[in-house]
Amino acid sequence: MNRRDFGIALGALPLLSSIVGAVSPAEAAEVAKPKIGMLIYPGMILQDLVGPQTVFSILQADVRLVWKDKSPVATDVGIALPATDTFDTCPAELDVLFVPGGLGGSIACMKDEDVIGFLASRGPRARYVTSVCTGSLVLAAAGLLRGYQATSHWYVRDLLPLMGATLRAERVVEDRNRLTAGGVTSGIDFGLTLAARLSNEDTAKRIQLLIEYDPKPPFDAGSPESAGPALTREILQRRAPLIEAARKEAEMAKERLGI
Amino acid sequence: MNRRDFGIALGALPLLSSIVGAVSPAEAAEVAKPKIGMLIYPGMILQDLVGPQTVFSILQADVRLVWKDKSPVATDVGIALPATDTFDTCPAELDVLFVPGGLGGSIACMKDEDVIGFLASRGPRARYVTSVCTGSLVLAAAGLLRGYQATSHWYVRDLLPLMGATLRAERVVEDRNRLTAGGVTSGIDFGLTLAARLSNEDTAKRIQLLIEYDPKPPFDAGSPESAGPALTREILQRRAPLIEAARKEAEMAKERLGI
Repeated sequence: MNRRDFGIALGALPLLSSIVGAVSPAEAAEVAKPKIGMLIYPGMILQDLVGPQTVFSILQADVRLVWKDKSPVATDVGIALPATDTFDTCPAELDVLFVPGGLGGSIACMKDEDVIGFLASRGPRARYVTSVCTGSLVLAAAGLLRGYQATSHWYVRDLLPLMGATLRAERVVEDRNRLTAGGVTSGIDFGLTLAARLSNEDTAKRIQLLIEYDPKPPFDAGSPESAGPALTREILQRRAPLIEAARKEAEMAKERLGI
Repeated sequence: MNRRDFGIALGALPLLSSIVGAVSPAEAAEVAKPKIGMLIYPGMILQDLVGPQTVFSILQADVRLVWKDKSPVATDVGIALPATDTFDTCPAELDVLFVPGGLGGSIACMKDEDVIGFLASRGPRARYVTSVCTGSLVLAAAGLLRGYQATSHWYVRDLLPLMGATLRAERVVEDRNRLTAGGVTSGIDFGLTLAARLSNEDTAKRIQLLIEYDPKPPFDAGSPESAGPALTREILQRRAPLIEAARKEAEMAKERLGI
């Protein structure tokens, strides 16, 4: 189905709840569209973006994909996607600032002055500052998680306190206007949680039913606790060089932030 | 992280289990890469594709995105993606033939001779014939689910029996070499299920841990049963014209298939 087919009426948005039926979905969208800036970058994990983006799209949000320029950025699955906005054209006032993950790409972003500058300029003015997976390392490197509870992919989440955040090892962590989520697939849980904040719970539930989010994982191995020490250790060993590189970047950021 | 960072060693693939450590992941990939043909089409839901594709990518599969031509096809979230292969260049022998959903686009595919011809040519030779969401309507219209148990997005799954399938209303339905899944987000459960078949359970669990698939939906509304009759009816009403169009196409297919 196309965007219009899949969209839900925005009659459920708070602003419009009193005039349901008085405006068409298209007119409603003009009034209440939340403005969402999603950073994209080379080496990102496409699922981290598409999970929440699917939810935001049904919400008929005004979604901007933002990068330094508009040449397509490569993602983990081989699909390259171009930004719709650059750091310069992205609106100054966002309802949501979002950063996806992808460890190698996140590390590069943590030390990239343009990326950090963009996040530091939009973050303090955004209604919500959010991430999925290792995206929270980038937010933290920009100083945006200092003094906040937050999480990240399980294999690097212990780096967050280096940059002034308090680690809460949950799937979606909400602390005031900061929403951070765990690895990759947590973006769906995150998207629905945020949809309820941007709109209301009934709208979030309607989206959940549309995307049939009634998960039944075929195995019980989605967390270090359920997967057990052998599988966990194996992944940590294989990722060791990248995790070490992330730790170094976190320490550099700590120094830069004066923590 | 980039594709290489995120990939797991294929030492766990059955063919290679006896030589773990004797080959590098890159060499292993040369030997055992499953060949996966994923149909893409205008109006598809990107999440339907990216969920399983994320799993296949970690499995270091040889993934082809297939359409009539290589001009980018529009998806629900506004991201357009180009095929890597056309119907002509897609390998004749696939390990996996896959069709994503998106109701409007699926209906168009059900009556598209080129699409049906492509699926009918690759399906009978593929090791696995698979779909997420309304993709199963397209498989069924190509005669590929006749005599098989199958499922689809909850709001159209009752159309499958018109085209010779037996409906089993589960999240992932496996019947011999047919794997069909429910709406949108079921693609992750599907991908992990198929990864275990293409490789083994330990590999699927390792992927599950990497993508941290430990779902905790913030609401309990992912199925008609849990969402309740009011939300369900509302969506069915809003979708009525499209669902009716899908029913008409299913009846045309029934006639064409001589059922």
